Amino acid sequence: MYRTHTCGELTIADLGKEITLCGWVQKSRDLGGMTFVDMRDRYGLTQLAFNTDDDETLRARARELGREYVIQVKGTVIERSSKNLKIPTGEIEISVSSLEVLNAAKLPPFLIEDETDGGEDLRMKYRYLDLRRNPVRSNLILRHKMAQVVRAFLDNEAFIEVETPVLIKSTPEGARDFVVPSRMNQGEFYALPQSPQTFKQLLMVSGFDRYFQIVKCFRDEDLRADRQPEFTQIDCEMSFVEQEDILNIFEGLIRDLFKKVKNVEIGGLPRMTYAEAMRLYGSDKPDTRFGMEFFELTDFAKGHGFPVFDNAALVVGINAKGCASYTRKQLDALTDFVKRPQIGATGLIYLRINEDGSLKSSVDKFFDLEQLKTWATAFRGEPGDLILIMAGEVDKTRKQLNELRLEMGNQLGLRDKNKFSALWVVDFPLLEWDEETARYHAMHHPFTSPKPEDIRLLDSEPGAVRANAYDMVINGTEVGGGSIRIHDKKLQQLMFKHLGFSEEEAQKQFGFLLEAFTYGAPPHGGIAFGFDRLASIFAELDTIRDVIAFPKNNAGRDVMIDSPSTIAQEQLNELKIAVKN
Amino acid sequence: MYRTHTCGELTIADLGKEITLCGWVQKSRDLGGMTFVDMRDRYGLTQLAFNTDDDETLRARARELGREYVIQVKGTVIERSSKNLKIPTGEIEISVSSLEVLNAAKLPPFLIEDETDGGEDLRMKYRYLDLRRNPVRSNLILRHKMAQVVRAFLDNEAFIEVETPVLIKSTPEGARDFVVPSRMNQGEFYALPQSPQTFKQLLMVSGFDRYFQIVKCFRDEDLRADRQPEFTQIDCEMSFVEQEDILNIFEGLIRDLFKKVKNVEIGGLPRMTYAEAMRLYGSDKPDTRFGMEFFELTDFAKGHGFPVFDNAALVVGINAKGCASYTRKQLDALTDFVKRPQIGATGLIYLRINEDGSLKSSVDKFFDLEQLKTWATAFRGEPGDLILIMAGEVDKTRKQLNELRLEMGNQLGLRDKNKFSALWVVDFPLLEWDEETARYHAMHHPFTSPKPEDIRLLDSEPGAVRANAYDMVINGTEVGGGSIRIHDKKLQQLMFKHLGFSEEEAQKQFGFLLEAFTYGAPPHGGIAFGFDRLASIFAELDTIRDVIAFPKNNAGRDVMIDSPSTIAQEQLNELKIAVKN
Repeated sequence: MYRTHTCGELTIADLGKEITLCGWVQKSRDLGGMTFVDMRDRYGLTQLAFNTDDDETLRARARELGREYVIQVKGTVIERSSKNLKIPTGEIEISVSSLEVLNAAKLPPFLIEDETDGGEDLRMKYRYLDLRRNPVRSNLILRHKMAQVVRAFLDNEAFIEVETPVLIKSTPEGARDFVVPSRMNQGEFYALPQSPQTFKQLLMVSGFDRYFQIVKCFRDEDLRADRQPEFTQIDCEMSFVEQEDILNIFEGLIRDLFKKVKNVEIGGLPRMTYAEAMRLYGSDKPDTRFGMEFFELTDFAKGHGFPVFDNAALVVGINAKGCASYTRKQLDALTDFVKRPQIGATGLIYLRINEDGSLKSSVDKFFDLEQLKTWATAFRGEPGDLILIMAGEVDKTRKQLNELRLEMGNQLGLRDKNKFSALWVVDFPLLEWDEETARYHAMHHPFTSPKPEDIRLLDSEPGAVRANAYDMVINGTEVGGGSIRIHDKKLQQLMFKHLGFSEEEAQKQFGFLLEAFTYGAPPHGGIAFGFDRLASIFAELDTIRDVIAFPKNNAGRDVMIDSPSTIAQEQLNELKIAVKN
Repeated sequence: MYRTHTCGELTIADLGKEITLCGWVQKSRDLGGMTFVDMRDRYGLTQLAFNTDDDETLRARARELGREYVIQVKGTVIERSSKNLKIPTGEIEISVSSLEVLNAAKLPPFLIEDETDGGEDLRMKYRYLDLRRNPVRSNLILRHKMAQVVRAFLDNEAFIEVETPVLIKSTPEGARDFVVPSRMNQGEFYALPQSPQTFKQLLMVSGFDRYFQIVKCFRDEDLRADRQPEFTQIDCEMSFVEQEDILNIFEGLIRDLFKKVKNVEIGGLPRMTYAEAMRLYGSDKPDTRFGMEFFELTDFAKGHGFPVFDNAALVVGINAKGCASYTRKQLDALTDFVKRPQIGATGLIYLRINEDGSLKSSVDKFFDLEQLKTWATAFRGEPGDLILIMAGEVDKTRKQLNELRLEMGNQLGLRDKNKFSALWVVDFPLLEWDEETARYHAMHHPFTSPKPEDIRLLDSEPGAVRANAYDMVINGTEVGGGSIRIHDKKLQQLMFKHLGFSEEEAQKQFGFLLEAFTYGAPPHGGIAFGFDRLASIFAELDTIRDVIAFPKNNAGRDVMIDSPSTIAQEQLNELKIAVKN
């Protein structure tokens, strides 16, 4: 037997025990006639003591151990003279009687410590060493715990975990499908699923009633925005439910997760309509860790000769509490911020409510004091506040002010990673206009049901049709989204038509689903959570990369194994495909 | 709210309750002025009663319901006059006050009943209807339960579930890799993993100590033998362990599974060496639900002028207890059985021990009664037994007799699907000779460690080197296999050399692993279970297909969604690949 205990479990209660431990050399130090070695494994650190007086040879061998050597020691648990009460094993050490080097180690290319000197590229190339670092490993242990809690919760709620296929069918709609040439069916391709959407709907048609799966999905797209070509979804579907049933169940799931994994009570999740979220936050994923809601002052602001306001469809602002002391320079920086190309505003107007109650605005010459006072009141402005105002087209201006609001949240320290604010955003539009293709696209996907009372608007005012669709948002991030699905063949055909499918296309791609709907499809709906994203929020990280054991870089490459790579001509021949130059 | 209860939960204790139920029409029947409808959901069946006297219109509507209609009813729980005590809801029925058809259904192409009239092809095309049948759905519920028990067991044993990548690197060794062209890295390909082998080893190098994953793997190969191009493994790895540690842990897992999922105590798993398994059963996956071990009578049988024996390296037989009464015709059928091309024996010799103790053999003219008596004694033959003997080359003859033994087990009803016999087969050969390529291949994989005491044989007698490798066998099926891995770079390089890799090839394909071994790799080992196979054994099925929700057929096709399929030229262009004719 390699070991009797792990490096995390021996305490003062074990004094005198003869034990065997295995682990990695974290570091060692000499002190007089002694050498102390910190030995590490997943479970903790244990201090080993080698004493020249006891065994000179052994101590000499201990001094030769390098960092990250894998060793096995036998010895006795003794009390430490200088205790470290920060760790569970800090009151004891091992008086070592025998030492075996199980594997030597070269000096790692970066420090295996909480704060490493390794850059991103080096850490990824040697990811197996990076994963030795406590923060990275603990992220993955957290992820493991989350997965177990999710499964236990759903199992308890009568959900059945069903594995759906990874080798599925490519559709022209699936522009970002990864495809897989088939050897047995030469010239034909499978596709990797972007989600198990149609399969989970078929499981509802099958009467599975409640389905879930923690499942890899794939999308071959630009990876700029902290995305991965393969990602993991917590995928769920239920039959005989209305939207409210789904919101209640999965609100329960997320509360259970926070409670069991982080011991945080997040309370009930408010529901906010999409329209309200856009109006109050300029975003369908508002960060509600802080207020600073939008206030629209279009009616107050127009007709006073200030062209920026007069030509604007919307004049809207936020109250940055306590920011009246912002200097000219700081205000200019904010203006520069909103003028950045990725935000694209033309300018920023401010109204400063000085500590003495006096007002100062960048549009003093168009508005008199009384008017400015009206604004201040509208924003519930108090001495010390800074009101920031933008104007322009409705959607664009809201988006720009959303960016500014988030920036102010950052500047004011209102976006603590260890505070959590979750909500549901509901009543999403069914369709969204795509400038590029000049047609409407499904905002969620083509299987989302419209609100029955809005179906009549499909022809006349498609953009106004609301869907039975909902997102769960935590701290300004969409962590999950879903909808009540269409379960009626005719309505599904109508949707395909509105999305620009010909009848033939719809039949060719989704004929099996349309046909399934004719054999007794129950009303159903579901949700999918982005597990990587959810885990990163729980881990209080900015990126999903460190909750993934072996992530790919922004170019979709795994630099550790050097993938993707060219393949042998033989393999190409067998698949009957050729690479074109 | 769609329903207050499911169709499986109302009992006599609920009499008088006003309820709402949803489900599918299983069948209906008229009886006097009544119509009874069996309504089904995943949870059970509930009988609905419609009475002309109560509501003639409603009853008329009930009579129009077709099979598989999706309906919602409101009504009152009442006591049935003719009870069905076989089902939990069999003492009650619903006196229906309102009926809503949620979705009509065409007549299904086959019966949605336990015994269906649908053939395999039709069932697969309409798999979503096939999945409504109780036996198929209960297989998937069983699989779900197994997955939860496995995870709970491993979680409790400190294993961490880590997701490894699906988009990995193709290697020339991976002749059966599925490959995935990359859009971002044109001309390059990912491969889908045949197993997460190297990643789980890297997780051990990372110090994860105990890893598991229930994970999809992929192999593009002939699917004759009840295989699927995508299959699921319970994949595990542990550090600082010897073989015995692994056998103990996973013996615990399988016993826990049998206990919790099937309430069966399977007892401890015997260990049998590969050599012993081949000698006693002619197979490395012996079906130990029955005895009928091989007995070798080479020494008795040679030198008596019977050329078949005299020219044979091995004469070996089994005792088919109680089969002395087999007719000439039955014996001929057995001879035909072993002569079939897939078995390929040249003949079969029998020795019949008649009820009166007299002996009758097909080789009477070469052996006298005394000699035959010696045989009978050797086989512990008793009156009524039939001894069946084969002769020839050692390996071939054993394999042939294994087939015959299994066939006799079938004929004698000794292979009950609801009996379970599990064991470990250990000490597998490290290498096996491949006739086709005329070289040695790794019997498990190149990362399996040889037994230290056998390393010296690597050059002189490679076929005799035993590995620290083991399989778990249940009822004659290998359900899992694994090994203690190599964790030393030099030994791994030596293995690659013996497997015919040049140093450059080894470096190119597995350089990252070899390098990882230089940074402090712990001793480690693991196992992978075929989850589909294991589930099929638990479900007492012959095929894995019915424990998979959406399986592919023997040609690797999903006939429901019609995949694989051709893809658009546009997609090919974007990937810079072409299909060759």
